[in-house]
Amino acid sequence: MSLLVVGSVALDNITTPKGQVSDSLGGSATYFSVAASKVSKVHMVGVVGEDFAEIHLEKLRNCGIDMNGLYVDKGKTFRWTGIYDEDFSDPETISTELNVFADFSPNLPDNYCNLPYIFLGNIHPALQLQVAEQMKKTALLAADTMNFWIEGERKKLLDVIKNINMLFLNELELRLLTGLRSPLAGAEKLLSWGPEWVVLKRGVYGSMLVGKDDELFVLPAYPTKDIIDPTGAGDSFGGGMMGYISRENQLNKETIRTGLVYGTVAASFCIEGFSIDRLMNATDTEFQNRLEKLKEMTRF
Amino acid sequence: MSLLVVGSVALDNITTPKGQVSDSLGGSATYFSVAASKVSKVHMVGVVGEDFAEIHLEKLRNCGIDMNGLYVDKGKTFRWTGIYDEDFSDPETISTELNVFADFSPNLPDNYCNLPYIFLGNIHPALQLQVAEQMKKTALLAADTMNFWIEGERKKLLDVIKNINMLFLNELELRLLTGLRSPLAGAEKLLSWGPEWVVLKRGVYGSMLVGKDDELFVLPAYPTKDIIDPTGAGDSFGGGMMGYISRENQLNKETIRTGLVYGTVAASFCIEGFSIDRLMNATDTEFQNRLEKLKEMTRF
Repeated sequence: MSLLVVGSVALDNITTPKGQVSDSLGGSATYFSVAASKVSKVHMVGVVGEDFAEIHLEKLRNCGIDMNGLYVDKGKTFRWTGIYDEDFSDPETISTELNVFADFSPNLPDNYCNLPYIFLGNIHPALQLQVAEQMKKTALLAADTMNFWIEGERKKLLDVIKNINMLFLNELELRLLTGLRSPLAGAEKLLSWGPEWVVLKRGVYGSMLVGKDDELFVLPAYPTKDIIDPTGAGDSFGGGMMGYISRENQLNKETIRTGLVYGTVAASFCIEGFSIDRLMNATDTEFQNRLEKLKEMTRF
Repeated sequence: MSLLVVGSVALDNITTPKGQVSDSLGGSATYFSVAASKVSKVHMVGVVGEDFAEIHLEKLRNCGIDMNGLYVDKGKTFRWTGIYDEDFSDPETISTELNVFADFSPNLPDNYCNLPYIFLGNIHPALQLQVAEQMKKTALLAADTMNFWIEGERKKLLDVIKNINMLFLNELELRLLTGLRSPLAGAEKLLSWGPEWVVLKRGVYGSMLVGKDDELFVLPAYPTKDIIDPTGAGDSFGGGMMGYISRENQLNKETIRTGLVYGTVAASFCIEGFSIDRLMNATDTEFQNRLEKLKEMTRF
């Protein structure tokens, strides 16, 4: 079944120990869509400015992403400038220019409102709620968030959390949100607030799934020697995961676990290049090989 | 087959967010032996002072540990005083009093020299070499180390690494030793220096095994909500792991992987209490339950 993502589409200026790029295609909806497109059909909702180059649109189209929900507004595209140090962990944000994203109001094309699998990328919780309210046939409603909203829009964010099935967040965000340092205790607290599943993103250490039915699944990241740029890894993870789940159109334990495996492999390609290029160009064979290798390196 | 450990036996003064203990039984050989004793027969070589309380000896004896190699010297037992913050990560060392450990020279009882499985705990590399040279029928010679030796005794440590089969270390130590930030690249560099296996200890994120025959195994930690004191977790991990391997008396891929699983479970008990008590008191049923749960929470 089809998958909907609502999130940012950005032009990034990124410096990492491995290089530097300017006006590079990025954003949560972009990474999510490209990853999901490896596995399933995905529909993207977002906004760009008049400066958004045709070449970017062409790339996304070539991935098979439906972009009827990508609006072009007067003004400039959302821009993020950041620097990673040698740890490739939390980047320093040099500037965030919201531009057309400041007035983004996700009104969905009519036919999108019936899509069953939905990922609310990291945008203002009020906008996440606005999308959630438009959906009519939800099978799985998932959302991502970030420290900015946890600190500044906590009440609205708790509304979102109450109304979704699955929350994606990282360990720092889990602490900020729950006040708990134990990932397991924090995730269980979040479950008591509404969602059925919490997906904890742990960067180079992988991910953890905690579910209401006592489900606990811990998966390492796919080890790589060549990190180029970690930007978009979390959204690629979400895209690979939800792409698989929507393709299987099932919400049982096995499907969701395998979803995390697909997400892990998608993220492993994402970080091996700037922007979406390495992920986009990963062949089916490469993708399958990593799925198998991840299985082999975790079995006992 | 039997297992030998050479390392420190200490009295620790530890403060964590969960409490405080004084003159608490600790040390690398202690934690290793108690963990190994859950699975296999272990012989301990170390030194304590005249102040070492009989109750500690009794505890270790009750675990079934052979302590014919534990010497009592004139003077005081090695003491470590440390404080953990709320992250339970790198503790602040308040003081290290070597005491009798300063002149420790591990001369093994004759019958120990034929033991096939050996763990050289985190002691001076010259002492590790001294033990290695006394061993006559080695099946697996493993060593642990720490930043202090990496920075101060690099040449001797490289000698150790050249002569062992398996090196245990954490991520920071791997970086210090190899200059590489990628765990996989760092481990592969270490393999080129001698050992057949590198076991990377990643704290709450688990462990990674990298072997010369393209072996790569990544295992999460056993998630726990109740960390009390992480002291000894790495040595308990080593003890559980080598206890299992020595019991099976095999060095194939499956045995070593399952060894890491046993080590992970041993470490999970260690951190749920001060000193060795929680680990020592874990029943066979509890141990088996966690082995099964770890399998269930990592399969897909």
